Amino acid sequence: MDKAQILVASNRGPVSFSISEDGSLDYRRGGGGLVSGLSSVAATTDTLWVCAALSEADRKAAATAPGARLDLAGFDLGGMRVRMLDIPDDTFTDAYTRVANSTLWFVHHMLYDTPNKPRFDAAFRREWQGYRDYNGAFAEALLTGSADNARVAVQDYHLALVPRMLRGRRPDLRITHFSHTPWAPPEYFRMLPAEIGRELLEGMLGADHLGFLSRRWADAFLRCCEAFLRVEVDWSKRTVEFGGRIIEVAVHALGADAGNLRERAAAADVEERRAALRERVGDRKLIVRVDRTELSKNIVRGLEGYREMLRDHPEWHGRVTHLAFAYPSRGDVPEYREYTESVRRVAKEINQEFGTADWSPLILEVNDDFPRSLAAYRMADVLLVNPIRDGMNLVAKEGPVLSDNGCALVLSTEAGAADDLGRDALLVNPYDVSETARVLHRALEMDDDERRARCERLVERASALPPSRWFEDQLRALR
Amino acid sequence: MDKAQILVASNRGPVSFSISEDGSLDYRRGGGGLVSGLSSVAATTDTLWVCAALSEADRKAAATAPGARLDLAGFDLGGMRVRMLDIPDDTFTDAYTRVANSTLWFVHHMLYDTPNKPRFDAAFRREWQGYRDYNGAFAEALLTGSADNARVAVQDYHLALVPRMLRGRRPDLRITHFSHTPWAPPEYFRMLPAEIGRELLEGMLGADHLGFLSRRWADAFLRCCEAFLRVEVDWSKRTVEFGGRIIEVAVHALGADAGNLRERAAAADVEERRAALRERVGDRKLIVRVDRTELSKNIVRGLEGYREMLRDHPEWHGRVTHLAFAYPSRGDVPEYREYTESVRRVAKEINQEFGTADWSPLILEVNDDFPRSLAAYRMADVLLVNPIRDGMNLVAKEGPVLSDNGCALVLSTEAGAADDLGRDALLVNPYDVSETARVLHRALEMDDDERRARCERLVERASALPPSRWFEDQLRALR
Repeated sequence: MDKAQILVASNRGPVSFSISEDGSLDYRRGGGGLVSGLSSVAATTDTLWVCAALSEADRKAAATAPGARLDLAGFDLGGMRVRMLDIPDDTFTDAYTRVANSTLWFVHHMLYDTPNKPRFDAAFRREWQGYRDYNGAFAEALLTGSADNARVAVQDYHLALVPRMLRGRRPDLRITHFSHTPWAPPEYFRMLPAEIGRELLEGMLGADHLGFLSRRWADAFLRCCEAFLRVEVDWSKRTVEFGGRIIEVAVHALGADAGNLRERAAAADVEERRAALRERVGDRKLIVRVDRTELSKNIVRGLEGYREMLRDHPEWHGRVTHLAFAYPSRGDVPEYREYTESVRRVAKEINQEFGTADWSPLILEVNDDFPRSLAAYRMADVLLVNPIRDGMNLVAKEGPVLSDNGCALVLSTEAGAADDLGRDALLVNPYDVSETARVLHRALEMDDDERRARCERLVERASALPPSRWFEDQLRALR
Repeated sequence: MDKAQILVASNRGPVSFSISEDGSLDYRRGGGGLVSGLSSVAATTDTLWVCAALSEADRKAAATAPGARLDLAGFDLGGMRVRMLDIPDDTFTDAYTRVANSTLWFVHHMLYDTPNKPRFDAAFRREWQGYRDYNGAFAEALLTGSADNARVAVQDYHLALVPRMLRGRRPDLRITHFSHTPWAPPEYFRMLPAEIGRELLEGMLGADHLGFLSRRWADAFLRCCEAFLRVEVDWSKRTVEFGGRIIEVAVHALGADAGNLRERAAAADVEERRAALRERVGDRKLIVRVDRTELSKNIVRGLEGYREMLRDHPEWHGRVTHLAFAYPSRGDVPEYREYTESVRRVAKEINQEFGTADWSPLILEVNDDFPRSLAAYRMADVLLVNPIRDGMNLVAKEGPVLSDNGCALVLSTEAGAADDLGRDALLVNPYDVSETARVLHRALEMDDDERRARCERLVERASALPPSRWFEDQLRALR
């Protein structure tokens, strides 16, 4: 098998399969920053993307491809070479669902109901072994697929142990790891079992270069290193010395892919959604939000902020509509199901309290319709992005880019995006429903000139580091 | 009215009243570090204690006393002068129940189920005004009752605004504020509405001297000052410059009042409980815990740790009994009621899984019996203190002091007491049920010599700063 000079490892790959009615394999290339970032690199260098099979169809595709190399099985991946790993079911559930998404995600987003969760017991130790095995499977594939002195870009909290696993066996490799989430402060990170916290940090420090979306998360990581590994941090250079090497910790603030987005948002299906929405809401002002139904996205408090605004400012009754598009996520986890129920309940309360024969103050849709989301971005007068904690939040960057008339952005201080956009967004404390109400009113009231001028500056900042450059910067750091 | 040279302000005072069957007022002096600390000072200096009426009987007592001065109404308070404030019901509920205990307590102990709580809305702003009024009532009483250049010792998170209120009107006063809770790291503290977070910090910085129970909490406070007030912190001296003054931030690690405790634990009612317990458990080893049913005390995970130990070490079956004494707390708050139910449920599961005709592995009592708690401290082979977060935790200090044969202390890393006792206690991560199981086993196995030697050192450290010296140190800091 040929060896690659550049390798990417991530749980989700750039392509996903489904089984069509006649039993054959369908596939489509994914969206997202990493795919578009890598595509441009893949066109010029020889690269290999290692990812996990996420469905039965994925597994089937991987099984039919020589060495699980999808590109060798005749699938057109735009020049990318992709190896899709068939991880055993139990291992995948332990690693992905239990450790990564129900533990590490909760730690970094500070989502736990601490009196009751987490509890690290014997069952968790078995799950942790699954996480190790899953990381090991990726490491093995990267070792096999890499040329001498290749550069390896490992993605996210699912794969925190991979850098050290590679380092131990192939010191020639140059390794970067990028975290797409926030990073917990030491006061929260320390709830992990001590030896597991250290294993995570030491796993990542196997890399030469560590990337984060915000200075805040990078600092939190460095503080964790100080607190749990007793290593020296050079705060002026933002480096750690570990295992006789110097590891750089840097911020790469992923931005919107403006060109691709605008092209997609001009398509007929989006135009059609836009017309239908306009028909439905008339010339009312539009407050838009688009999120996964994810505990960190803070949809309920956003709705409550809107409710408090309608109570305090009856002058908006009949003159504004809030479009809340929430696409379903993690419906298999009880907390997520209950959360989605809360969203529906508050939405209903708002329409009951304020709705009239010819005005629905709130339109909530809990389903996934990507072109409709793009249409909503185009139409928004106000875009509301109020997560309680968020690595970056690309909605805050993509919304302004697509805005037809320049939207006002109401943005949580706790989103990484606030670093880049804080000057021209209207910032809110996501826990503060009253402030959210006040700021929504202010955003609705903003005069056209100010709104457009702010939005222009938002677009500039939001697209300052498009995915391709974001990815190239990380590779360049592995000089 | 006479003016005092030393004043203490705290929500709960040194005396509480009840109405006896014939309708007359009964009263008793409270226990606790502050009361015993102040008593010794009160004997030599003229002091005034300002506190809130906490019951109808308290109110009645305050109403009958001239200027609400209980000592002038003929109650014998051991030389202390006490003014008990009759705070209007609504104000008290807003300040004490809603702001202090349901918000500030949750913030400093990091107890929130963050996707759902807190939410700071218009109702919270009204409650906050109640907190201000309550603080204002204390400030007014302190202003009225203080001699020129008097020293004022303000206690705890209920009264964070008092120092600044005093400072503004009486720059001659010398003011200290002491926090009996942990302090939240800035990453958590920032969930408070920004202006309220600042008001709290600035309120406390009205003092000349701020005291905390642990270096960790003092550091967290200083980091909050840096993050939210943009003030200069001198980390070598642990001072902040604010409003043209230098404020000291110091650690006063309150210890056990060994003499008083031992005297109390030798009384007949304790002896009687001890005999009854011994009768019940025979010569089995005893693991003891004593807590309020408080979300931060982590009783459920403690029981789960015990369960995992019994699963992993059948050799203890029949040879150990866990006494878990939980006295009821905040039964009016749904989270607390549910938590107590979880405690009962897990306890029942453990007895069902392991209990036999002649062995109950666990004895859970959810009621308040102080002499029984003292008896349990005397008898414990292992004392389990595993809060998820705790300002100090005096059980960890009082238990070893009272131990008849030298107990092993299993102690949470997250209790302030771990600073003082960490060397001779066996430390556990309170979220880590498996580690708790392992360490309980290790504690049970510890040989007598080691256990006694450790316990002797624990007693020495635990009683190093008894309440009287703890209080004198704070007054001395106001030189």
